[in-house]
Order: sequence, then C-alpha cells, then structure tokens
Amino acid sequence: MEKHLVIIGGVAAGTKAAAKARREDPDAKISLYTDEKYISYSACGMPYYIENLFDSSDRLIVRTKEEFKEKENIDIYTEHKALQILPDSKEVEIHDLINGKIFKVNYSKLLIATGAYPIKPPIEGMELKNVFTLRSITDGIAIKKALSDVKKAVIVGAGYIGFEMLEAFIAQGISTTIVELSPQILPALDEDLAFQVQKYIEDEIAPKVEAGIEIILKDGLKLIIGDENGRVKHIKTNSGRVIETDLVLISVGVKPNVELAKNAGIEIGSTGAIKVNSRMQTNIEDIYAAGDCAEQFNTVSNTPMWVPLGSTANKQGRIAAINMTGGHAEFKGVLGSAVTRIFDYTVSITGLGEKNAHRYGIDFETAIIPHKDRAGYMPEAEKIVIKMLAEKGTGRIIGVQAIGKGDADKRVNIGATAISAGMTIDEFVDTDLTYAPPYSPSIDPILTAAQVLQGKLRKKTGAISSRELEKYLKQHKACCLVDARGFDDNKMKVYCLQNGSENIEKEDFEQFLKETERKVVVYCEEGIESHITAQKLKEKGFKDVKFIDGGLECCTCKKLSELSEK
Amino acid sequence: MEKHLVIIGGVAAGTKAAAKARREDPDAKISLYTDEKYISYSACGMPYYIENLFDSSDRLIVRTKEEFKEKENIDIYTEHKALQILPDSKEVEIHDLINGKIFKVNYSKLLIATGAYPIKPPIEGMELKNVFTLRSITDGIAIKKALSDVKKAVIVGAGYIGFEMLEAFIAQGISTTIVELSPQILPALDEDLAFQVQKYIEDEIAPKVEAGIEIILKDGLKLIIGDENGRVKHIKTNSGRVIETDLVLISVGVKPNVELAKNAGIEIGSTGAIKVNSRMQTNIEDIYAAGDCAEQFNTVSNTPMWVPLGSTANKQGRIAAINMTGGHAEFKGVLGSAVTRIFDYTVSITGLGEKNAHRYGIDFETAIIPHKDRAGYMPEAEKIVIKMLAEKGTGRIIGVQAIGKGDADKRVNIGATAISAGMTIDEFVDTDLTYAPPYSPSIDPILTAAQVLQGKLRKKTGAISSRELEKYLKQHKACCLVDARGFDDNKMKVYCLQNGSENIEKEDFEQFLKETERKVVVYCEEGIESHITAQKLKEKGFKDVKFIDGGLECCTCKKLSELSEK
Repeated sequence: MEKHLVIIGGVAAGTKAAAKARREDPDAKISLYTDEKYISYSACGMPYYIENLFDSSDRLIVRTKEEFKEKENIDIYTEHKALQILPDSKEVEIHDLINGKIFKVNYSKLLIATGAYPIKPPIEGMELKNVFTLRSITDGIAIKKALSDVKKAVIVGAGYIGFEMLEAFIAQGISTTIVELSPQILPALDEDLAFQVQKYIEDEIAPKVEAGIEIILKDGLKLIIGDENGRVKHIKTNSGRVIETDLVLISVGVKPNVELAKNAGIEIGSTGAIKVNSRMQTNIEDIYAAGDCAEQFNTVSNTPMWVPLGSTANKQGRIAAINMTGGHAEFKGVLGSAVTRIFDYTVSITGLGEKNAHRYGIDFETAIIPHKDRAGYMPEAEKIVIKMLAEKGTGRIIGVQAIGKGDADKRVNIGATAISAGMTIDEFVDTDLTYAPPYSPSIDPILTAAQVLQGKLRKKTGAISSRELEKYLKQHKACCLVDARGFDDNKMKVYCLQNGSENIEKEDFEQFLKETERKVVVYCEEGIESHITAQKLKEKGFKDVKFIDGGLECCTCKKLSELSEK
Repeated sequence: MEKHLVIIGGVAAGTKAAAKARREDPDAKISLYTDEKYISYSACGMPYYIENLFDSSDRLIVRTKEEFKEKENIDIYTEHKALQILPDSKEVEIHDLINGKIFKVNYSKLLIATGAYPIKPPIEGMELKNVFTLRSITDGIAIKKALSDVKKAVIVGAGYIGFEMLEAFIAQGISTTIVELSPQILPALDEDLAFQVQKYIEDEIAPKVEAGIEIILKDGLKLIIGDENGRVKHIKTNSGRVIETDLVLISVGVKPNVELAKNAGIEIGSTGAIKVNSRMQTNIEDIYAAGDCAEQFNTVSNTPMWVPLGSTANKQGRIAAINMTGGHAEFKGVLGSAVTRIFDYTVSITGLGEKNAHRYGIDFETAIIPHKDRAGYMPEAEKIVIKMLAEKGTGRIIGVQAIGKGDADKRVNIGATAISAGMTIDEFVDTDLTYAPPYSPSIDPILTAAQVLQGKLRKKTGAISSRELEKYLKQHKACCLVDARGFDDNKMKVYCLQNGSENIEKEDFEQFLKETERKVVVYCEEGIESHITAQKLKEKGFKDVKFIDGGLECCTCKKLSELSEK
C-alpha cells in the first residue's frame, strides 16, 4: 500500500502537521480534509480583525490551499467533512459538501485534528439573527459584517475571548455589557488578581469610553428575545434583568470535537478530550490526535489537562508529524500558560493558580507584589502585580500570574521557563536577569516576589491574604495592626481592635513593643515594606506577626480601608 | 567588643548590604563610610536624567542619609574616605574630608563595596574643561550643566554608556561623533549582531536626526586640544583625524577600585577584581567584598569573570549582609546578562557570546533568527533578531542575544532563566510560553530559534555564518547557491559559481537534482525557509547542504547581495 498520511482538520495542528510531515518525508502522499472553507488561519487574531486593527481577514491566513499544493505537494480538501473513521480497514469516510458525494480514503497514518467547538447554551432564542459564537474565521467575518448597525452588545462569558471582544466592540463605539455566571471575571486567574483587573476596567477604562461598559457577575443568560424580523432585541438574565441589545456574543467556553474519534472507538480522557500519549498516539494503532481535540499533560500537577491554545496545537502538530513519518519526538506537556490584552492592560498566567493547586492537593505558599515594571524614575514605568506560588517543603515554583499596564507578560514567561525547568525558589531567587532602567528596576519585580516568597517558605515571615484578613480580624479581636509606611520604624503607627467592640483605636507604640505575645498584622502600600517590618518585629521577639500579601494596593478588607484613610 | 558592621562604599552594594543587615540584625551597630557626597543612587539612570526624561537628579536617589538614620538606625558618613584597612587590629583608618581629621574605627565585620572607577586614558588634554567621564551622580550633574552651550560632542568608546549618552545628546540637538578603537560597536555583543545595530543607527536613526550622528571604528583618541579658556576645542584621533567638539565624554570602560583591599593584603582575582567566595568572603577573615569591586563567577563557563552591574551589586550586597550577620547565603554567580536601549532599539544579551565561548574552549553551535516579535498581522509587530548558542554534544544552552525594535529583552530573559537552570535545547524547545497575537507569534521566536538550533545540533542541517560565507565560496568554486524563497520547491532557483571564474550563473534545476555530490548553500530572507529547504535537500540525497544563518537579512556577503538583486 502506498504511504498515505491523512489529516482531518485544517487550522493550527492539522496544517502544521502537514507541513512538518512533508519536511520529514519528501515523498509521502499527504492529504488534509476539513469541513471548513478556510484553512491555516490564526483564530486568535479574529478579535483584532474585528477591532479593525488591520484591513483584511486574509492577513489571518498563514498559507492557502494552493500554496500547500504548489510548495509542499500536499492535497487540501476544504468543505470535505469526515463522517467516520474505520480503523479495521484503515479508512476514513468523507462527505464532499460541495457536490454531495460520499467516498472513502485509505490511510497508513491518520491524524485527528478536529479542534474544539464553542459551547452553545440550550436556551430560547439562540437561533435569532445577530446571536454569535466566535470560533472559525467564518464566524469572525460574520460578526464584523453585522457590526455596522450595532449600537449595543451583550457578551456572555467573561473569559479571554469575552474581553478581547469587549475591546473590539468598544473601539467601534458599541455599548457593551458582559454577563458572567461565576462570581469573578477571568476564571483562569486567581480571584484576588481577577478582582483587580475588574476594578481597572470599571474604574479606569469605563469612565473614559463614551459607549459604556458594564460587567454583571453571578448572573447568567436565561433567554434571548427577538424582534419581528427575527433579530435579537433584548436578553433576559437568570436574575430577571432585561438588557436591550443589538447583538449577543456567546463566549462561555469550548469543548473538544471528539465525536468522530469516539465513534471509532478511540479512548477519550478524563478531561473529555482525546487521550494521547507523549508521541500524540491514541489507543488505536496508526491513529494520532493533536491540537484542541487532544488532551495535554500538565507537568506541574502531573495530571491530564485540557487547555486548548494555538501555541500548544502548533507544537503538538509538529510532534505528531515527526512520529507519523517514522521519527521520534515526545511532547513535554503544558503549564497552562496564557496571556491576553484588555485595552492597555496585560493579564498573564503560567502553571497552577490557587484553585488548581488545591484541587491537586499541593500544599503551597504565595506572594503578591505590586511593583513598577521599570526603574521608578523612568516616565514609561507602569505598575504590575505579580503573584507567585511555590510548593511548601520542596520550594518548587508551581505558578506565576502577572497583571497590569506594565510589562507583565515578560515576568510570566520567565516564570514559565523556571517552572518548566523544575526550579525551586532558592534556585531562582538570584537569577541573573538583564537590568537597565528602561526595562526593569535593579532587582526585577519577579525576583522581589521570589525573595518575599522565600522568606515566607522559610517561615521568617507569615502573610495573610487580603481575603482572609476580614475573618482573621473577627477571630482575633486583640490583634494589633501596624502601619509600616513612613520613615521611622521607631514611631510606627499601631492600631488595636478593642476587645468586644469593632472599633479600631490608636495604641501607644512603646507599650506595644513590650507585649510580644500579641498577634500583629503589618501593612503597607505594596507588601514589601511590611514584609521587611514583619521580619524586624519577629527579630524583636514578637511571635505571631503577619503581613498582608500585596499590601493595601491589593487589599479588599474594609477595616484596612478605614485605617488607610486615617 | 560591640558588634560593629562597617561598610566602605555607599552606592548599590554598600547601601543594600546596610539595609539588609539591619533587617537580619535589629541591634547591630552599622556604619557606612563613603568618600562621595551622595549615597544610594541609581548610577544607571544618569543618561536618562541627562536626556531630560525626568526633572531632578533627586529621583535617582533611593534613600537619603537621614532616612537611613531615622528609619534603620544606620550611620552614614559621606565625604569620609577610607585610607587603609588594618586587618590585624580590625580597624579602618578614615579621613573626614570635611574637617580634615583622620581617625580609626573598629569593625567586627567589614564590607568593601568600593565600586569601580572609569578608565581615563593617559593622554594630553584630559584636564581640559568639558572633558568628562560618567560614573558618579556628581559626574552626571556636571555633564548636564555643561550641555547648555554644547553643540557638538565626541563620545570615546562605543559601549553601553556611550550609546545611552548618544541618545541623551541627540535628544538635545547635539551633533555627536562616537570614536571606537575596536572594529565593532558594543563589544559584549557578537560581531554579526553588533554590525546590524550599527547599520540600524546609521541607516534608520541618523538620517532622521537633524543634529547628525557619526560612528568611527578602528580609531582611538590621541589627544584633546583646548582653546584659550582651557575648554575643549577639538580632538585628534590615532589616524590623524581632527574633530571639532564642545565636549568629550570618555566611556572606554571601568576598573575595579581595589587599591584599599590590595594594600591590606586582600587577594585580587585573575580578573583584577577582589577575589571572593560564594558567601562574598575575601581571603581575610571577617572581611567581605561586594558590588563592582568584587569578582563574580560565571556559571556557564565555570570561571571567574567581572561584569560590573547594578543588578549584581544589589544581589551581592544582600548576600554579604546575610553572611555578615551570622546567616548563610551563597551567591549563585552570574551569566553576564545585560540590556540597553539605543533610541527605540533594544540590545540584550545573556550567557556567553562567540568570543567567550571560544576563549573557554566550549565547542558550540549557533542559530540566528530574524523574526517579528508578535503575530505578523498586528500593527505593533516589530522585527527582532535572536541568536542562540548551545554546546555541541550536551546541547546545553550557553548564550542568547537579541536585538531589534521589537521586544528582544523578553526573549533574552527567558534564555537567562533557561541557562540558569542548565536546560538543554531539547528540554527547552517546547517550553509552554504564553501566546496571544499582541505578545508573540503562535510559536515564540525564541522557540523557533531553538528548533533551528536543535536541527543543527542533530546535524540534520548544517549552517554557515554570514561571515564564513565569502571564504567558503572562494574555497568551493563548484558550490551551488539555492534560493529557497517563493512557493514552489520544484522550481527553486539554483545558481552556480563557475570553476575558475568569479561569475555566478543560473543552473538548470533538473540537472542540479541529479548531482547530489555537489556542495549546496541554501538562502532565504530570514534563515527559516532555507533551514527547511536544506533539510529537504538532505532527504533528497544531497550530502553537503548548508543554509545561511540568519538569512539575507543578517548577511554581509557581497556575492549574496548580488544574487538577491537578481
């Protein structure tokens, strides 16, 4: 039998695999089938196309069908849907959507790269005009076309795509409401940072844009109501709110396209995506899977995970191609690294956040550092907030998140590399990163975060999260609050919660110093000064000293806000 | 004897050590002596102060003497020069420069943080008005003051400070000439990249600035000539060129300030800086050294090195303080990471460049990739050039350099982390970095560079550097040059050097394919397409196929320029 590599799916993993397979094997017959009209496009670029950052959707296309044929001798069949895989006869049944014919092709190796599809909630009104999901380039073109007479839009789901589309809508003067079922935006991010991103959008972006932005949390889409022309007119939420709108974008997540694989007896993993080994092989011989339809392995938690991303799809496609052409390559797995831009604000993450760390039973410590991203005196310096997580005991770095108007993404990628290499905080803390005032402070903020985290892991200082604080102050009514700001350690302001009352009173500092048995919580603006002061108080004999992670800048505790106004 | 930590030197390492020592030991007596008037300032920020990016030199000062006293109970003695160290009696002799008194202080632990001083060539005219070096904040203030009636300036030395000051001068409309003795600018950078930076300044920056920029290589400063008022009027170079100027800035490097240590019998290392162990201890008990006067250890080459930088000084000061107060901390060493901004162009480096790799006897392979830093369709995407070096055999990454208008620094810091962790190319190549169109292409350029380098290390493809090419074409007159650009592999353009002549003739492609014994050099724009084509030709049976590292974009070979015009 002639060697015939067959690929189902033509976006990232599929076309990457086709090109790489040709490079590895100049003579093999390679055919790619997709039910879509377009192939080899950057799905992640669509919000920016819709935003009008560039003119033509052609710019999203990496390579055309014709180019694949001429340059690589690869046959691409668009609008050809794979109906079923027949592993016994090593065939795929294909439906030519143009002329309606159904036929079978033989494969010697098969790659399933069927991607993922957007979740569509089973509610009334989903079929109305101007109700969209955004996944394929066809979706993108349709949304852009629809925008010309849209004044109000509703985005359902406050994930990455939701916010990228918010930016696109606002740029075109469209009033936009985001409706999110969960109590926080950006579910991949830890709650404390997500809260700050939301605050930024509501306090700094929303007042500046004429069109208006509203974010509604803890509420879901119940139904969509249309006008006499079958066009969306308003939506109703679970809580009963009615919102007028000209367009609804549903971006509540995606699911892997696994029906074809499942029907062929291919094993599906615990995440719902196709189970593959590190060589991208499924449980059936000569059948591989890659990209958004395939499972990954999280190297931090050592568990299967499914984070569908273009970067991972490209890597998996490449690995699959090497193995399908007789070579040997293994995919190392993923960290769940991701980044998005929300207006001029960066949100980036790698490794595990608190929720996942808890889920996988990892005992961890965190540090949160708000810091200028460059030397403070440089006019372009902007604030970022870095959160770092490390495992207790081993000190292994397990996650980094960074947000802000400054260069947050750089720090997360340094973190991704450190996590990928299995570095501990002790190994990482003095890494020789580049320094010049236009690029960073003399100690990079991610190293400052690592220093604070190192202190906490060594139990030199303990921290309390902004979230825990309110509860802690209720439990420990004789707790002292110490303001570490200002120049003079010997005249620090000390406040004390009065036993049996909610009031906070200023305390005598000299008296305070004698009572080393008291519980102390130190605070400052950014959590750095207070971390240092907490160390000093420990040295002075205080036994139970905590500082507030991320300082007042990251703090949501009302008691503290009262104090900071004093 | 009372515990008394004495620190000599008050810029980065000295003040960092003082503050950290206080944190570690709240009761110790800590005294810091410096002959300078200012302490705790960012020396690296001075070019930006001179450029007028911010108003006051006070912004460069991290903390004042008074703040150190009030906040930390640390005694800072400015304008107090340490004359000698007496290790036997554990004393330092101090000269109070204000009232002229000389006295001795006892130390229990001593930190030498005397920094470095700028090299002043022993030539005529160095004493003239408006001849400067830039090291202390006093220098910076003096230069800024002098600029008001400066129209022309000469900068001697084309290192980081030279270019940062070029930017500062140009911003104020001053015509500037850089004179550099060596054949390339930016000696820390590899020659091929340094050439591209120079081209950028000369071709893209210089024509846009009214004031005018000239870079003179392979020529040195011979003498400086003044006018009747003792102010610089012109300079003369070694080659006899006379350049009129109102100001001369000498930035030909620095040397460690080790006299004080040397006279006390403290061992000086092979680099000329004070020899210290990983705890920053010198050979004499209770005497430590940190910052620009102390040697470092390069963790890539496993040899002593001396790269004086503010970031390293801060880290060493911190480590010294922990050890001086009875703790234990070890400095991991450095990679030689550095970054600078030249107008809107970033130059960044970590690990070893080619020269140092050769010097340390490391057998290495390189890859050069010019690439957009973001998804190509994003309007803000800019080009960067990444060069990556890895050791043959082990595959260990030993160096990364990146330059360009795009985000080069991010990639070098990812590289620094990978090198610091001891990662090999195989371990690094699939690292899960963040991806979104405003931040990177779907495969980050540093991973593309790693893929190319991996191919070369596995000998799937060999590359030839732009520099070697001219020589190679002379040696192999029957060599074929193959243009990998365009869409059709089967109609690639093949050129052949004619035996016995210098001419390049177009060859028949079909004929070429039959002659697999011929030497082949493949080229394209960026070195990626040609890397792939080289792999394919190898698969087709060609035995000696090379591609040009970095492609035509990085190529200086005249023969190739001829071809690319065809």
